[in-house]
Amino acid sequence: MLIVMNVAHTKEQLSGVVRHIRKMGFKAHVLPGVSSTAVGITGNPRPLDPSLFEVLPGVKQAVTVSKPYKLAGRDFKRADTVIHLKQGGLAIGSDTLVIIAGPCAVESEEQTLRIARKVKKAGAHILRGGAFKPRTSPYAFQGLGLPALKILAAARKETGLPVITEALDLESLEAVYKYSDIIQIGARNMTNSSLLREAGRLDKPVLLKRGMAATIDEWLMSAEYILAEGNSQVMLCERGIRTFTDYTRNTLDLNAVPVVQKLSHLPVLVDPSHATGLRDKVAPLSRAAAAVRAHGLMIEVHDRPDEALCDGPQSLLPAQLKELIAQLRAMGKVLGYKL
Amino acid sequence: MLIVMNVAHTKEQLSGVVRHIRKMGFKAHVLPGVSSTAVGITGNPRPLDPSLFEVLPGVKQAVTVSKPYKLAGRDFKRADTVIHLKQGGLAIGSDTLVIIAGPCAVESEEQTLRIARKVKKAGAHILRGGAFKPRTSPYAFQGLGLPALKILAAARKETGLPVITEALDLESLEAVYKYSDIIQIGARNMTNSSLLREAGRLDKPVLLKRGMAATIDEWLMSAEYILAEGNSQVMLCERGIRTFTDYTRNTLDLNAVPVVQKLSHLPVLVDPSHATGLRDKVAPLSRAAAAVRAHGLMIEVHDRPDEALCDGPQSLLPAQLKELIAQLRAMGKVLGYKL
Amino acid sequence: MLIVMNVAHTKEQLSGVVRHIRKMGFKAHVLPGVSSTAVGITGNPRPLDPSLFEVLPGVKQAVTVSKPYKLAGRDFKRADTVIHLKQGGLAIGSDTLVIIAGPCAVESEEQTLRIARKVKKAGAHILRGGAFKPRTSPYAFQGLGLPALKILAAARKETGLPVITEALDLESLEAVYKYSDIIQIGARNMTNSSLLREAGRLDKPVLLKRGMAATIDEWLMSAEYILAEGNSQVMLCERGIRTFTDYTRNTLDLNAVPVVQKLSHLPVLVDPSHATGLRDKVAPLSRAAAAVRAHGLMIEVHDRPDEALCDGPQSLLPAQLKELIAQLRAMGKVLGYKL
Amino acid sequence: MLIVMNVAHTKEQLSGVVRHIRKMGFKAHVLPGVSSTAVGITGNPRPLDPSLFEVLPGVKQAVTVSKPYKLAGRDFKRADTVIHLKQGGLAIGSDTLVIIAGPCAVESEEQTLRIARKVKKAGAHILRGGAFKPRTSPYAFQGLGLPALKILAAARKETGLPVITEALDLESLEAVYKYSDIIQIGARNMTNSSLLREAGRLDKPVLLKRGMAATIDEWLMSAEYILAEGNSQVMLCERGIRTFTDYTRNTLDLNAVPVVQKLSHLPVLVDPSHATGLRDKVAPLSRAAAAVRAHGLMIEVHDRPDEALCDGPQSLLPAQLKELIAQLRAMGKVLGYKL
Repeated sequence: MLIVMNVAHTKEQLSGVVRHIRKMGFKAHVLPGVSSTAVGITGNPRPLDPSLFEVLPGVKQAVTVSKPYKLAGRDFKRADTVIHLKQGGLAIGSDTLVIIAGPCAVESEEQTLRIARKVKKAGAHILRGGAFKPRTSPYAFQGLGLPALKILAAARKETGLPVITEALDLESLEAVYKYSDIIQIGARNMTNSSLLREAGRLDKPVLLKRGMAATIDEWLMSAEYILAEGNSQVMLCERGIRTFTDYTRNTLDLNAVPVVQKLSHLPVLVDPSHATGLRDKVAPLSRAAAAVRAHGLMIEVHDRPDEALCDGPQSLLPAQLKELIAQLRAMGKVLGYKL
Repeated sequence: MLIVMNVAHTKEQLSGVVRHIRKMGFKAHVLPGVSSTAVGITGNPRPLDPSLFEVLPGVKQAVTVSKPYKLAGRDFKRADTVIHLKQGGLAIGSDTLVIIAGPCAVESEEQTLRIARKVKKAGAHILRGGAFKPRTSPYAFQGLGLPALKILAAARKETGLPVITEALDLESLEAVYKYSDIIQIGARNMTNSSLLREAGRLDKPVLLKRGMAATIDEWLMSAEYILAEGNSQVMLCERGIRTFTDYTRNTLDLNAVPVVQKLSHLPVLVDPSHATGLRDKVAPLSRAAAAVRAHGLMIEVHDRPDEALCDGPQSLLPAQLKELIAQLRAMGKVLGYKL
Repeated sequence: MLIVMNVAHTKEQLSGVVRHIRKMGFKAHVLPGVSSTAVGITGNPRPLDPSLFEVLPGVKQAVTVSKPYKLAGRDFKRADTVIHLKQGGLAIGSDTLVIIAGPCAVESEEQTLRIARKVKKAGAHILRGGAFKPRTSPYAFQGLGLPALKILAAARKETGLPVITEALDLESLEAVYKYSDIIQIGARNMTNSSLLREAGRLDKPVLLKRGMAATIDEWLMSAEYILAEGNSQVMLCERGIRTFTDYTRNTLDLNAVPVVQKLSHLPVLVDPSHATGLRDKVAPLSRAAAAVRAHGLMIEVHDRPDEALCDGPQSLLPAQLKELIAQLRAMGKVLGYKL
Repeated sequence: MLIVMNVAHTKEQLSGVVRHIRKMGFKAHVLPGVSSTAVGITGNPRPLDPSLFEVLPGVKQAVTVSKPYKLAGRDFKRADTVIHLKQGGLAIGSDTLVIIAGPCAVESEEQTLRIARKVKKAGAHILRGGAFKPRTSPYAFQGLGLPALKILAAARKETGLPVITEALDLESLEAVYKYSDIIQIGARNMTNSSLLREAGRLDKPVLLKRGMAATIDEWLMSAEYILAEGNSQVMLCERGIRTFTDYTRNTLDLNAVPVVQKLSHLPVLVDPSHATGLRDKVAPLSRAAAAVRAHGLMIEVHDRPDEALCDGPQSLLPAQLKELIAQLRAMGKVLGYKL
């Protein structure tokens, strides 16, 4: 249920509506908009009767929301969410195509700084690098952990690039929150509700990857877990779904970008590196993601892919990233985005 | 097995190799290339020993081909296949992004001519229109049949556009062959081996759509059925695969375009209309298909979609097609294709 | 729309209803039942108003059918369809668990007769054997064709077992119709509407396999193509669907058996051999198919699997079939079927 | 790598092998068997040379393990793992078909005790009931939490049935460990490596459900996360995979049962309730799971399904459970299991 206030409502009327909702045992989310203010109700086990709210002073209309998600939907918030990063002054969800690039994993300070300088020079906006790696095998390299976070902080200091890295559990979330500009929640944790809720209580942007077999609705419901706790800085990232196909690791679902953009106001990025697992497919699918007007790209880059501790075969070389960014920039002039 | 001839081989040596292969009970396919000539062997139930051929005069090398398909693969033919249409002088598989557009079904002469003029004016190269419609339900509109072919011929005469339409079985194949510039074999018939073989005996280009659950290898094997009969004018068309996702009818698999282009020399087109089933998703995914460098697009267009006898909700309006083509043309300047 | 007649309706009233339907431009299917007679209407592009028919003399009720299929649905025909084979006196769709067994392909008269005797001795009811083989590769063994049909006829003559074999196109359909007791339409041809329609005009039972990516509704719609032409002797066969899983060729979908049995009156069989592609998985999944109360099983058997021209690795040995049938027979005493 | 000791090896030789492995920087897992003892090595980034170990005193053979999982595989441990529950004296993984039954969620003490008595009377061995519920929506009922665990403990005390309930995160894991006989890790957390590792450090049995899009190898790798920490009491539970199909919530993959049983020594159970989401499909698919020789079943039961706070439509009534168990028991006499 969404309670839309009159344009000329008073502060008292607004808090009266909130109090009324709470007395009924539900949660009230005040959603200030440019031209109108609304109050979202969550926690109601079944649809409510609009007339219960339309009699309250200052209320223009009570709208039943048809989708299982509420705060993530366009019904609740018409305008695109734009996430402003302090570090670097970047706006994600705007008309800028945001490029996140860097190695799969932070392997050493030397490796990370070296690659950070190269991706910056190539034109990337944000540095990625895994500190805590979710791996299928317990025997595979699991990341350097805390030392990797300090290396990322050093790379940020030197290059000025904001950084993003993944949190796997409550413990690593606390550490990632401390060091990183954006908190990544990976595909394997998209349904880890405890982690989502805890990320929702933080005041830093969260990038939520789509689970390998998640429908669009389920993905938005996972975003809703974060939003419902009060953190409105959520961006989504499509990274390939599991299908029957061979040749690529997963099937990058670019259909999802315009679909999500119609349903939700949250920014949508695309990770072609994990989706395909193949270096020579990253550039064409990055261009395709720009062509469907994704808000950003997340690309793995390594200057010595043969030595990489993980995912070397899918990493672009810095020179390839530079060339790709030049191409994406030229496409932007036609398609109406900046880079 | 692929027999590569010496650059300086004689005609006699070449026909000697062919005779040798036939004597062994196999089929020989002479494959003349720009710089070298090769002979492909098919019909061998299991791998052959290269030394059986390397002793023959004029033979440089005998190469075992690792893929289940042969004639469809880059091992057999390095250079891209370019299909030249007589009508319109179009080259499919070249650096031109070919636009096929028109109604889902031919409904009447008036409707088809009207739309044909509009798609031509919008910049399309080829007119599509279903005469024989494969439908899930036996009670749904199955197409006008033969009269529709005559209407398409009339539209070609008036607009100069070559036409493409689907054949469903041997009977309709004969009729389509007579009237159409390109024979379409649809997703539902991708594994109809009799139809594929018969199309392989014709001397007109064939567009082979990918089956809804076909792997890349299976799709190329279906192309191989056509090629093995002697028709080398085969183009492929990705049209969405079946996955678990909601919101779009199928999942357009753009990963498939660069994957196929690496494995095969055949042109690859994309049909975003059937893949998504939604008008507002056609333009973004068309741009994405161009961005992965598909060789062409197949787009449904109707000027009165609410009256369309089939697939109205996914048809672009002529004005939308025009706008899309303008955008694709501008992208082509950046990406290196013509339109 | 289904017109249910009064119990005490006259012959004139029934033909009046049929005439009325035809005058409206639709097709009428008289469906005589044990206790009541109904008339199904097909060919109507959109739902009809029941009152148009309820005023006719002798009509009890006009029922709108909610599913896209009509003749295949329980709305049209409540009672299970039982298909009686002349050869062998077998009833498919009854409380007998029907066992179809035999080699993947007819390879020679000697091989087929030898295996036919063994599967009969093991307790099978029907002999299977491919004459026309649909293959992914044009270079794979495509079956012996017409001579194989004659071999099957000889095996029937000797053993008394009815036979089933697959038709691939209109040409082979005619031949199969002549020689075989049941006509098989394979997964690759489930959406070949011409073949379905032609099979619908014949007076022999048809076994329709589920396409690899067919939903239940699509499968029943394919059955509807056959039924709509007048052939009511259709049985269905689940043979594994395409999913992301590894280790087995396809995923046998046993959920489909009770689902289809609720929606449709047609018999449902299961083919565990093609679903798994693995000999040691055939027995457990056969038992599982019996446990969900499939009406029959289709099992590949070969006495010399290492020499088999196709699908040797999934074929049971005759001794394994015998042991499996013994086990299935014992289960039948608990589960209420005969064997 | 698996080091197989001589039958007549000494204790000193065994600890010498362990020391040697640790000196190389790897982890040693002593695996005592009935007739022979082996030592598994994990933590090695790449395959090791067998000769490094075969020279050590007491070593019979060093075997390279080909699968990505080690401790979960039959290479490491030939004999079936049997998990003995103290409460109730039950052996999971033996020739008993174990029945776990109970409500989706613990709703109140009254409701849980009432249903616990009924499932016991119907013949179930273990009581299930959710205390912490993983839900797609943050607004759906999330379970009673800690009070629910105390209710389960009370139900165990009264009925004598051991209990199983799900842990969602480290916090609930600690509580579940304290109160429950078996710790369940759900499909949504199958790739939550922190939770898996922590469960691996506990000394209670863990039931690990298969993720909705997990391949068999990935599922066994998740089990490996638990095993690698030292907890060898792991049982697996198939609960339906995500496919394109309609009508059932997921596709129960019974193929997986014999596949896993060949690859791994761990017990495999089946949950037909979540797989299908439909009450009338639970009994046939339970019989099918018994027919492929799953080691147990996990079935939702509610005596007032219309009032259930979650998953009422898929819950069996107690009388239906009783009837099903009677049928499964009779099948066991044929198939060789006890119940």
